[in-house]
Amino acid sequence: MMAAEPRRSGRRPGESSAREDILTAAAAAFAEFGYDRATIRGIAARASVDPALVIHYFGSKDALFAEVLQLPLRPREVFSRAAAGGIENIGASVVRSFLEAWEPPEQRLRLTAMLRSATTNDAAMRILRDLLVREVFAPMTEILGVPDGDLRATLVGSQFVGLALMRYIGGVEPLASAPIDQLVAAIGPTVQRYLTGDVRSGPAAGGAGLQAAPEVRPESAPAPPDAGGPRI
Amino acid sequence: MMAAEPRRSGRRPGESSAREDILTAAAAAFAEFGYDRATIRGIAARASVDPALVIHYFGSKDALFAEVLQLPLRPREVFSRAAAGGIENIGASVVRSFLEAWEPPEQRLRLTAMLRSATTNDAAMRILRDLLVREVFAPMTEILGVPDGDLRATLVGSQFVGLALMRYIGGVEPLASAPIDQLVAAIGPTVQRYLTGDVRSGPAAGGAGLQAAPEVRPESAPAPPDAGGPRI
Repeated sequence: MMAAEPRRSGRRPGESSAREDILTAAAAAFAEFGYDRATIRGIAARASVDPALVIHYFGSKDALFAEVLQLPLRPREVFSRAAAGGIENIGASVVRSFLEAWEPPEQRLRLTAMLRSATTNDAAMRILRDLLVREVFAPMTEILGVPDGDLRATLVGSQFVGLALMRYIGGVEPLASAPIDQLVAAIGPTVQRYLTGDVRSGPAAGGAGLQAAPEVRPESAPAPPDAGGPRI
Repeated sequence: MMAAEPRRSGRRPGESSAREDILTAAAAAFAEFGYDRATIRGIAARASVDPALVIHYFGSKDALFAEVLQLPLRPREVFSRAAAGGIENIGASVVRSFLEAWEPPEQRLRLTAMLRSATTNDAAMRILRDLLVREVFAPMTEILGVPDGDLRATLVGSQFVGLALMRYIGGVEPLASAPIDQLVAAIGPTVQRYLTGDVRSGPAAGGAGLQAAPEVRPESAPAPPDAGGPRI
């Protein structure tokens, strides 16, 4: 069996079926119960394998969770491709990649596992945070080469986490059934500004409203936070 | 004992101490365990009262949870005040109100209870969603009088939920310790656009990057999603 894409885990052919079954069962268990209440024993039962096999392949619940978190997209490639398409469209491009990657049902399950586990268990949150920093935020900052990379990366993260939570877990309408194009139009400019715009000096950077807001520029706005206070 | 502010629950003086103790205990239990694993019995023990008293005051775990969700701010007032300050500053104003309301430790606990419970339990998610729609989204749309109110409200909600999750639960830096002014500057323009800007036609509405992005307008961008496809 030839894999069309290289896999990071480097497993041998023949192992793949039980291993994949365990991963699918683990994603379902973490999604249903969260990290704390998902057990190796329960995951093994769901995958119809011996618990010892779960330990054999993955070592521990932590390690199994980290494996479930394997992202359905390669952030480095997403950012490189988006940047190659012109930095002025990177926001829309990243939003589209994010949504397309998580849209399939089995990926939604993984995302649910991730968010349920991370919100309820500190160890799971730490694993997720480390993953984000290493695999998403660092490449993003590096490829874009913008200042304030950590701030920008976590701002983008906050928008995506909230969107995923309301769309996939909460089923809050109209976000839950909005077509991807609609969300790219609505959220792309947010991500664009977080990635390449001014995130330090306040209202000036925001698109003034097309319908309601006059073209008021910040001369009339409250003193920008630039004026003082701690910086991060 | 005179209450400085009118309370919605209309309880009699004298009840307040046990009732408040139960609410504090419930917030802590929902925050620590999530909705499923928080029990009336455990909450009563934590508040040093009889479980019957919890039932007497609140009726059920559902009702107690709904009470824990009492928002630390009145969205109708927040939006009215923000709108009175000029619609062009409403984004910054709403972000500041949101952060200031949730910043105190006991409010962070409530928010954690809310998010942990809602991400892991469908009943809790339903209660939270109903609360948001009724107490936050509806007043917002009504006061601003903009079209696409539901879409705008849920977009704002997605940014706030993600921010709360990363700042208060995840402790993801630099968001976790960013001063409020910094976050108002970074996120205010996002909320401004979601509330009053163009959320339908894509990249044109985004602030072009001050540092990296040339003033490219969407003639060079991909066809806007306006061109077709289902609308919500």
